[in-house]
Amino acid sequence: MYDLAGADPNRRFSPFCWRTKLALAHKHLDVETIPWRYKDKPLLAFANWDRVPVIVDAGKPVVDSWTIANYLEDSYPSQPSLFGGVAGRGLARFYNAWVDSTLHPALSRFVALDILNHVAHDDRPYFRKSREERYGTTLEEFCKDREARLPALTQTLEPLRQTLVAQPFLAGDQPLYPDYIVFGSLMWPRCISPLRLIDPADPINAWSERLLDAFDGMARKALRYW
Amino acid sequence: MYDLAGADPNRRFSPFCWRTKLALAHKHLDVETIPWRYKDKPLLAFANWDRVPVIVDAGKPVVDSWTIANYLEDSYPSQPSLFGGVAGRGLARFYNAWVDSTLHPALSRFVALDILNHVAHDDRPYFRKSREERYGTTLEEFCKDREARLPALTQTLEPLRQTLVAQPFLAGDQPLYPDYIVFGSLMWPRCISPLRLIDPADPINAWSERLLDAFDGMARKALRYW
Repeated sequence: MYDLAGADPNRRFSPFCWRTKLALAHKHLDVETIPWRYKDKPLLAFANWDRVPVIVDAGKPVVDSWTIANYLEDSYPSQPSLFGGVAGRGLARFYNAWVDSTLHPALSRFVALDILNHVAHDDRPYFRKSREERYGTTLEEFCKDREARLPALTQTLEPLRQTLVAQPFLAGDQPLYPDYIVFGSLMWPRCISPLRLIDPADPINAWSERLLDAFDGMARKALRYW
Repeated sequence: MYDLAGADPNRRFSPFCWRTKLALAHKHLDVETIPWRYKDKPLLAFANWDRVPVIVDAGKPVVDSWTIANYLEDSYPSQPSLFGGVAGRGLARFYNAWVDSTLHPALSRFVALDILNHVAHDDRPYFRKSREERYGTTLEEFCKDREARLPALTQTLEPLRQTLVAQPFLAGDQPLYPDYIVFGSLMWPRCISPLRLIDPADPINAWSERLLDAFDGMARKALRYW
């Protein structure tokens, strides 16, 4: 698996890659991760793709975290299910869409400048240029006064909080792929930014702690700030 | 089933009641609905509750739309499942939380004044007083310039839209309770407000049309504006 890394090859902060690493662990599949930087886009030409995660399974490349999750579910049906059935797979997509359309735009204004400061030195010009084009402003302006946006972020997370007050995981008593989608997104700021975004008393934090512990503490052992 | 009604007893606009009516139809259960007004709170004293939906099944009252859905799923296991399994039931809760915490606050600023104008005459003072206390302002101020908030609402609906571009229902190929949760919320403005909130070209509209058709056009036949 090609996994986005910072200047420190142990800093693995991509939310999409976290989804895939957690999905692989859920399926009890061993994986070798290859640290990948933005400048390594040509390395993915074999998969006809230009971003991570990309996995190679028995010589076959599979790209895009959602496609990978579905590939793993279909290719390893005797391993624990990522979706818990047909309905679960259908219902998982909204979590993906909620994160991509709502949570990530909010989180990006907390992490963008920290990412710049943690990526490999020769990734920095690309990262700044591509993100400043996407955001339509400088990274400094985009992330300015981020502490003032914490209450809005807390509000954005309210559906997650209300769910986790009622049950231990988004999928119920046990985590499934939707848990990894959302938790993977929170590993993004955790691994890249010293600013703690989740209050220790927030029910979201208790759920995060359970997922940090999952798979022999795989996420807990990651290089992270909080 | 006690079902919120306006001055016209056929105007049934409660999003929570729509969830329950669709859940009952999904389970192929016949139901007699009793039009209920805010002034009828004492009628629900037998259930130790003060709002709708309330259903009475074989003499037993069940209150709260989420509790009712779970009651129906557990009490009628041989009828079509509302959740599609254990994982589906767990994953459904986030939809409930997203609607309650995100979609309803946005929709309320479109419908609050229309509700006032459609409820029974002797419900109006209660509705105005209780809602103005909840919202901290007059209904007129709360709903002022609502057209200007349409772009923000369109953005709020983005996770729904992204999901429905990819599949016909939130649950996949067939609707399940999460579809009824969200569609029920859109029946709220549909039944109470002439202002159309969903563009006909929006993928959300195509999904809504499918659900208007469901159960022999149950929702399509409702007294509504759009």
